[in-house]
Amino acid sequence: MPDSFPKRVTLLGSTGSIGTQALDVIRSQPGRFTVTALSAHSNAELLIQQAREFRPAAVVIGDEAKYETVKAALASQPETEVLAGAAALADVAGRDDADVVLTAMVGYAGLLPTVRAIRAGKTIALANKETLVVAGQLITDLVKQHGVGLYPVDSEHSAIFQCLVGEEQNPIEKIILTASGGPFRGCSREQLAQVTKAQALKHPNWDMGAKITIDSASLMNKGLEVIEAKWLFDLRNDQIEVIVHPQSIVHSLVQFEDGSLKAQLGLPDMKLPIQYALGYPQRLPNTFPRFSFLDYPKLTFEQADTSAFRNLGLAFEAMSRAGNAPCILNAANEIAVAAFLRDEIGFLQMSDVVESSLARVSYLATPTLDDYVQTDYETRRIARELVGQA
Amino acid sequence: MPDSFPKRVTLLGSTGSIGTQALDVIRSQPGRFTVTALSAHSNAELLIQQAREFRPAAVVIGDEAKYETVKAALASQPETEVLAGAAALADVAGRDDADVVLTAMVGYAGLLPTVRAIRAGKTIALANKETLVVAGQLITDLVKQHGVGLYPVDSEHSAIFQCLVGEEQNPIEKIILTASGGPFRGCSREQLAQVTKAQALKHPNWDMGAKITIDSASLMNKGLEVIEAKWLFDLRNDQIEVIVHPQSIVHSLVQFEDGSLKAQLGLPDMKLPIQYALGYPQRLPNTFPRFSFLDYPKLTFEQADTSAFRNLGLAFEAMSRAGNAPCILNAANEIAVAAFLRDEIGFLQMSDVVESSLARVSYLATPTLDDYVQTDYETRRIARELVGQA
Repeated sequence: MPDSFPKRVTLLGSTGSIGTQALDVIRSQPGRFTVTALSAHSNAELLIQQAREFRPAAVVIGDEAKYETVKAALASQPETEVLAGAAALADVAGRDDADVVLTAMVGYAGLLPTVRAIRAGKTIALANKETLVVAGQLITDLVKQHGVGLYPVDSEHSAIFQCLVGEEQNPIEKIILTASGGPFRGCSREQLAQVTKAQALKHPNWDMGAKITIDSASLMNKGLEVIEAKWLFDLRNDQIEVIVHPQSIVHSLVQFEDGSLKAQLGLPDMKLPIQYALGYPQRLPNTFPRFSFLDYPKLTFEQADTSAFRNLGLAFEAMSRAGNAPCILNAANEIAVAAFLRDEIGFLQMSDVVESSLARVSYLATPTLDDYVQTDYETRRIARELVGQA
Repeated sequence: MPDSFPKRVTLLGSTGSIGTQALDVIRSQPGRFTVTALSAHSNAELLIQQAREFRPAAVVIGDEAKYETVKAALASQPETEVLAGAAALADVAGRDDADVVLTAMVGYAGLLPTVRAIRAGKTIALANKETLVVAGQLITDLVKQHGVGLYPVDSEHSAIFQCLVGEEQNPIEKIILTASGGPFRGCSREQLAQVTKAQALKHPNWDMGAKITIDSASLMNKGLEVIEAKWLFDLRNDQIEVIVHPQSIVHSLVQFEDGSLKAQLGLPDMKLPIQYALGYPQRLPNTFPRFSFLDYPKLTFEQADTSAFRNLGLAFEAMSRAGNAPCILNAANEIAVAAFLRDEIGFLQMSDVVESSLARVSYLATPTLDDYVQTDYETRRIARELVGQA
């Protein structure tokens, strides 16, 4: 990875929460970054606006029905090639003219473009945690094989990554991922059974996309982060702990073999970990609001309630089963969250769909990339069935 | 500095709190360290016992009246040379046969042996904060000139030092030193006027020597640490903040120019920072008790009360006056604490002695080492006078 600036950035998922904040970071650091390519799933309007501002070499709109709209809007900007569809996305991820690929798509869709970017030797700023959840072994093997840097954007993993700089010679004893506990912290199962989509979409600390906000409310997000952390930091399953920390100030911690803990702290603001991943190893001066203990005189910590929030336990279970189990967990959860957001199932039923899918989809101990694609497909089919029966 | 083991350690102040804990660390890491020399101010009995166990090449007893006792006790151990007095101590600090000199003497007495050790090219594990408080500019210049490593042992400074590894390219925005607040946190000046020696000697979290325990109760310890931090981490005065954190779990924090904070945490146990300084850059596995958030579900932070605890403000003032002012502050405080421990003055009068000494001793903007020796001497004379008048 070139540590020097300007860095040429390809941003996959540029119209989502992470994508727009990444462009805020790039905009606020003139001369440090150029934008090579942008991609959006379906928000053509914002993609066009971003393309006009950042003038990338390529834009990709996932939804092929919107290709003509984007193409027409950017007709007067010939330096920007307009493409559409999944194959174009993967192709753009691997192009020569970028140094860093920031993967900020939602869900499983991040896997194949990330694989392509790694194979092309790009540094990966990984905001798409599902890539590592679904195919951690395969991705980390590829990363080693191609000698690329893989820098996390998730705030918890960025915290750990920041705590590990300069500690290469010192083994990790364990990591502690902090969890806000979401809007339903302290709720019983009976209360959780009644919660609405609107309540679940109100996160106390973080302003994020809908999928991850629901995952945060159900603690599935923390479960996915546990699996992501395992692969990012090469940990045994018993080296990963979760602690609920409602203020979201301590972003996560590492404990070394001498018993010393290091933590990274700050206001809950994704722009910091995004900027860290893009600028690594250099911290770029900025004007983000600063944390003060006078605003947070009390930081609290408590055990996660895994009996009310079953998803966290299911994620640990999928991690320990390994193979394609985390892929099943993720695919079933994507279907369950989408169904919850359409008011088709209740909050607790999301865990039911995940648990039943884990029981029903065939287990594979050492899946190939094709096996993951197949597992994802098969799980979605079964999970949709389960949603239909719910 | 040789990063490889075994390291040869000279331990100055081996019978005090830090010294005995350092020997606990060395004992618990067989094969990692050998002891080159030990020194004690006056505890001949313990020094003899330590010498019999660790069989150093030399021991120094500060109190020359006890030389014969030590010499006789170690007569059957010819490999250990027995020496006495301040000149012998400085001489031993600079000998060829050690890699690291751990300076764990109390107070100003640490200055000259530390200077000698730096001039001899030794790595310094600095537990004697007064060395940097008194003569920060001179010491840091010497450290640069001789290219030696200077690793802090104070838990707060060790925390910051640990947070800075791997961040060499990233400037510090500020540091936040945590303070337990001591046994009298929340007390008014009226209450402080009444406190006894016995109360002041009971620190809520740390088990330390008498001098530093009183300094912790009066917040002078934090003031000295502020000045120590300035020199250790090359900071402007306005880059150092203090926050009271009664649980003493977050040992201190660094904020970088991107707004990110890193902290080091753990149980209050000096063995960890001692081991870190001796083992640096390697963290050595150990069996020290581990921290758990379940034992500390609430970490609290509050502003220091500098109107009740004037020492902290006096230390900031001495730092900003610079020159020999911190030397005056330290010497006057040593006399004041000793007088308080002899019940000659009250708790609040310690600040009076320091403040009046700062006003009365001649200010020197750019003192030499001799000037420091003279300032220390002159300040002690004046402070004793002030104690006599109190």
